[in-house]
Amino acid sequence: MTKSLLKVAILGGSGYTGSELLRLLLAHPNVKVTAVTSERSSGYLVSDVFLNFRNTDLKFELLDLKVLTKKADLFFLCLPHKTSQETAAFLFSAGKKVIDLSADYRIKNPKTYQEWYNTPHLFPSLLKKAVYGLPEIYRNQIKKSSLIANPGCYPASALLGLAPIMGKSFIDTDSIIIDSKSGTSGAGRSPLQPFMYCEVNESVKAYAVTSHRHTPEIEQELSSLAKKNIKVIFTPHLIPMDRGMLSTIYVGLKKNINLLNVQKLYQDFYINEPFVRVLKNGVYPTTKAVKGSNFCDLSIFLNKRNGKGRTLTIISVIDNLLKGASGSAVQNMNIIYGFDETAGLLNSPQCP
Amino acid sequence: MTKSLLKVAILGGSGYTGSELLRLLLAHPNVKVTAVTSERSSGYLVSDVFLNFRNTDLKFELLDLKVLTKKADLFFLCLPHKTSQETAAFLFSAGKKVIDLSADYRIKNPKTYQEWYNTPHLFPSLLKKAVYGLPEIYRNQIKKSSLIANPGCYPASALLGLAPIMGKSFIDTDSIIIDSKSGTSGAGRSPLQPFMYCEVNESVKAYAVTSHRHTPEIEQELSSLAKKNIKVIFTPHLIPMDRGMLSTIYVGLKKNINLLNVQKLYQDFYINEPFVRVLKNGVYPTTKAVKGSNFCDLSIFLNKRNGKGRTLTIISVIDNLLKGASGSAVQNMNIIYGFDETAGLLNSPQCP
Amino acid sequence: MTKSLLKVAILGGSGYTGSELLRLLLAHPNVKVTAVTSERSSGYLVSDVFLNFRNTDLKFELLDLKVLTKKADLFFLCLPHKTSQETAAFLFSAGKKVIDLSADYRIKNPKTYQEWYNTPHLFPSLLKKAVYGLPEIYRNQIKKSSLIANPGCYPASALLGLAPIMGKSFIDTDSIIIDSKSGTSGAGRSPLQPFMYCEVNESVKAYAVTSHRHTPEIEQELSSLAKKNIKVIFTPHLIPMDRGMLSTIYVGLKKNINLLNVQKLYQDFYINEPFVRVLKNGVYPTTKAVKGSNFCDLSIFLNKRNGKGRTLTIISVIDNLLKGASGSAVQNMNIIYGFDETAGLLNSPQCP
Amino acid sequence: MTKSLLKVAILGGSGYTGSELLRLLLAHPNVKVTAVTSERSSGYLVSDVFLNFRNTDLKFELLDLKVLTKKADLFFLCLPHKTSQETAAFLFSAGKKVIDLSADYRIKNPKTYQEWYNTPHLFPSLLKKAVYGLPEIYRNQIKKSSLIANPGCYPASALLGLAPIMGKSFIDTDSIIIDSKSGTSGAGRSPLQPFMYCEVNESVKAYAVTSHRHTPEIEQELSSLAKKNIKVIFTPHLIPMDRGMLSTIYVGLKKNINLLNVQKLYQDFYINEPFVRVLKNGVYPTTKAVKGSNFCDLSIFLNKRNGKGRTLTIISVIDNLLKGASGSAVQNMNIIYGFDETAGLLNSPQCP
Repeated sequence: MTKSLLKVAILGGSGYTGSELLRLLLAHPNVKVTAVTSERSSGYLVSDVFLNFRNTDLKFELLDLKVLTKKADLFFLCLPHKTSQETAAFLFSAGKKVIDLSADYRIKNPKTYQEWYNTPHLFPSLLKKAVYGLPEIYRNQIKKSSLIANPGCYPASALLGLAPIMGKSFIDTDSIIIDSKSGTSGAGRSPLQPFMYCEVNESVKAYAVTSHRHTPEIEQELSSLAKKNIKVIFTPHLIPMDRGMLSTIYVGLKKNINLLNVQKLYQDFYINEPFVRVLKNGVYPTTKAVKGSNFCDLSIFLNKRNGKGRTLTIISVIDNLLKGASGSAVQNMNIIYGFDETAGLLNSPQCP
Repeated sequence: MTKSLLKVAILGGSGYTGSELLRLLLAHPNVKVTAVTSERSSGYLVSDVFLNFRNTDLKFELLDLKVLTKKADLFFLCLPHKTSQETAAFLFSAGKKVIDLSADYRIKNPKTYQEWYNTPHLFPSLLKKAVYGLPEIYRNQIKKSSLIANPGCYPASALLGLAPIMGKSFIDTDSIIIDSKSGTSGAGRSPLQPFMYCEVNESVKAYAVTSHRHTPEIEQELSSLAKKNIKVIFTPHLIPMDRGMLSTIYVGLKKNINLLNVQKLYQDFYINEPFVRVLKNGVYPTTKAVKGSNFCDLSIFLNKRNGKGRTLTIISVIDNLLKGASGSAVQNMNIIYGFDETAGLLNSPQCP
Repeated sequence: MTKSLLKVAILGGSGYTGSELLRLLLAHPNVKVTAVTSERSSGYLVSDVFLNFRNTDLKFELLDLKVLTKKADLFFLCLPHKTSQETAAFLFSAGKKVIDLSADYRIKNPKTYQEWYNTPHLFPSLLKKAVYGLPEIYRNQIKKSSLIANPGCYPASALLGLAPIMGKSFIDTDSIIIDSKSGTSGAGRSPLQPFMYCEVNESVKAYAVTSHRHTPEIEQELSSLAKKNIKVIFTPHLIPMDRGMLSTIYVGLKKNINLLNVQKLYQDFYINEPFVRVLKNGVYPTTKAVKGSNFCDLSIFLNKRNGKGRTLTIISVIDNLLKGASGSAVQNMNIIYGFDETAGLLNSPQCP
Repeated sequence: MTKSLLKVAILGGSGYTGSELLRLLLAHPNVKVTAVTSERSSGYLVSDVFLNFRNTDLKFELLDLKVLTKKADLFFLCLPHKTSQETAAFLFSAGKKVIDLSADYRIKNPKTYQEWYNTPHLFPSLLKKAVYGLPEIYRNQIKKSSLIANPGCYPASALLGLAPIMGKSFIDTDSIIIDSKSGTSGAGRSPLQPFMYCEVNESVKAYAVTSHRHTPEIEQELSSLAKKNIKVIFTPHLIPMDRGMLSTIYVGLKKNINLLNVQKLYQDFYINEPFVRVLKNGVYPTTKAVKGSNFCDLSIFLNKRNGKGRTLTIISVIDNLLKGASGSAVQNMNIIYGFDETAGLLNSPQCP
């Protein structure tokens, strides 16, 4: 008895996000990858471009939508923004399902999108139909959706760290600061001077201070959770490592609360979540313990010294390429198609 | 219908080799890990000692052989040498199967063992029954064996690079030089000053020049393959990375040969091997492309300039913790028990 | 004509701070290192213990104060806290000058010291005479002092980032959050499992959240600058690199201010400082650009989005072993003895 | 009394070699850098392009030889090969002194040059006047020369490791194998995909096996030392670190010799050399112990196992940007102008 496999395609498969997605999908029990595109590598065997792949005879092909629509039922888009807009719209019209890993369908307000991405949104009605692909918040909507806006890496780490308390009256929603540290794969595979080995290695730097494009995405989702307009301070940093993202999140408190109660609240919130773990009191998450996996580890601390009153410090770690991109894309696929939500995603991280 | 699972135990599970083995076995479709021991961590949950583990409620326990023999049918030994000798003998007598990741049953000549390991071998008759666990050479013997001496990491990388040509008349068997570069996980998890982050990082060094214990192991197996006594020059180096081992192997040639013929010879030798790949002419292997996997990539080059005549340069890369230790242990288990030889071992390496 | 050289000794010279100090002092035009102590390495040539040293025939010796007092006029103490207390007191009584790189004379309030260091302060009257060795704030007092409490690494990076605005009415002194990222050399040279290469590499983690001992030191100095009691939130993180410390500092604002005015304020504050540079608007500091040097780079950003009102984000980078330890110790020596303040400290960082 | 300073210019100052040279020259007591050129950065302050520089108001300028010849007496060329040919010839004709860090004047035989660099040599008569800038071999010729061909990094490490024994009858000159491991700064500062952080990090690879352009340079100098035609096997490897180069050199022996005698021979050969150190018997060099310095550490081992007879294993470490490029360029300048040969070059390496 042969199992019928879902036919999937990856559009934009020669970057780090696309190749990581391909790695996950090739090992997935329920799918068959029928196409993977790349402008720069079309015509080449995947296993010749990425030596880590074997046991596959896939070749990169050009992005020809007419050809591709016949090849698959689900399309993963790892394309630049703007390109993604149009491609998603075409595939959606053709009755296909789309998981878009770009930012194009994440920002609900077209004006905000245009302000941060310097290009208009040409498909505002489709934008309304897109579901933000964070299963821990939108699982039910994801199930029924044909267009998933897969979350950005920084938002994923921040939102998982903040979701359990956003509606709570004890937090000061005007006080949120997110200080994030990311491995270098988040910068992509294109050769750019600032991401050369000798520039990144043995150094740490902040970048895009006050101006990173993930800011409005974080604010939109926090506002939705809190049911009020929320602005945050978000500072990303580049760390000399391949993968991993740690967000240190500071939230002021309006009343005295007990740390154990907050930890309990987090544990309850994530009790049925297969990929989110709240660590025991006092245990520090490390990005290495989630590297290569779709897991997120959280730890919550209470600072009693602050002049302003008590403050929560929440530490959230993910692999930026997995739970921050391709892993959550696979999780979303599993939800949409009714596969086991953890299918293809349960391997333990490799340490060291 | 429930599948009957093989019960396995890991003795010495809190080092890097043991924990990597546990990672592989927890994801293996045919086995159930029933015990894992650790002197320093006994009583603690595995998932508390190693934050990368979840979805397991295993606890480290003390190494009590009477208790353990009842718990499992196959035992993986990740113990220090000498301790391994005795433990393997006990378990063998008790009718158990043993895969020993220490060096204790690798060296066939007890005198050679004593010379390099500074302790006598107390079980010479059992030593004769042990099979050297390199499937690419000893698959048939492994199938029938109850005691596998799992290869060392350097020998694994060197032997896979040399096996196809060892019996050939065109090589000068007195000329073999193996220059190996290893990631730091090979040095183990115990806190020693030379393996502190700030000592290893941003540096490369040779060590144990002319005196590394893997030398007689390499020589024994090369001699067996060549059917003559072979001595080699072997120089290990420590590289600032977690995992990965690259051996650059130089072999003088007695006659002119064509590079493509040698490459063909390698391809034929490994044509049915699931884990060894001979790269296309001119393609360079990288340790990153096999990281976290049981794969070995080989590339062969011909140097025509040498004053001595032509020389082969063979590049062999593995992950020292997988094909160089725990991965090949799982492969050996698969062979012994008739599981699919690649079961639990086929995931593509993560890149980057 | 021979120049008369100041005789200096380093007590505790086999850690990273001590050896870095020795490196600086051996190249210093005005001093002669006459003794360097080490319990673990006594009797060994410095150049045998640390292969980076040559051109010196210094040997590590035991810490025998009677012998040592005759050998030098200025003593650098790189000893564990508590030991440092007593050693400083002895040397001070003997009429020597002391620059103490431990925390023992930094905390002015003996109760606070005891609370955070778990040991009483046995020399409270000497504690009063000690000067906190941050030249940018205490230069005049340092000139006349015989006992310098050299700042901790995190405090140095944080205080240089905050000093120019601490007395200003536009900042909300109850809102200060310091999120610091440090290289691994700050953890010292002793072999401890968490600082092994394979534990630190390819990972980032927070530690000592809400409980790091540098917290009261930062608060003491900020309170002194602001002339009011100040508490801060301070979160240190461990980064996979040898050297370098970046502190991202968040300060709420009570009124609207212009970013250029704040940058001007910083530039004016540091205009005569040889080691502190305020970068141009929008330029991001990197730890690599100060690695191996006594320099501090600062950059100031204004966040206008925050729900609370505007917030300053200040980025401060230093080399934790230089401006965060041994470099500032040499700078303090230069000030005390009237040498050129930059003597021995002006080399440009090596990049990459 | 003001000291008269030598006016020097760096042509091609925005790569790693050029900027490292600038770092050394800015700290040099006898020179004044009057110009530094860069096509891509002309018009920008050096301290804006490279944040590690301060205390200089140098600006990058275009390479206009008419303008430049008036500005300096000594020119360092960090230009691509071929460009360097012509620039050196122009400056030489104008009566200037030139230290060329490119390969253009290293290969004495124009045919060999053309064969390996794919361009003819247009100045064969000037080529004859050029001196190969390895002071340990050519110090007397360097003193009188106006055109120095500064050695390549791999040749520098290999030649220092081999020079003391090349004329000796006990070595088999047909057996030399050089296995080199280099940090990534050797690949230059231009953005190329293979040298991106995520490609290099956590990996090691061989490259240019049998075809690296430093091969004929090594062979030319070894042949000159041995007074016979010598061919070598040379294999370079890329290591995940910024700086540092370790060459492991294998040399077969024609007769039995005593290791201590060979070590003595090396010590005698380098006894007056300020930058080369022969380590004690059994001590392993590390690249970290020479990082950022012009030093070279050597260690010699004797392998008695080899089927061929005894073999020497020589380990040579340098910083590829210093002794392998800019450091030796400064050393050559010191020799030509009669400065102290170690001026500006004696700082101890920073460890860690």
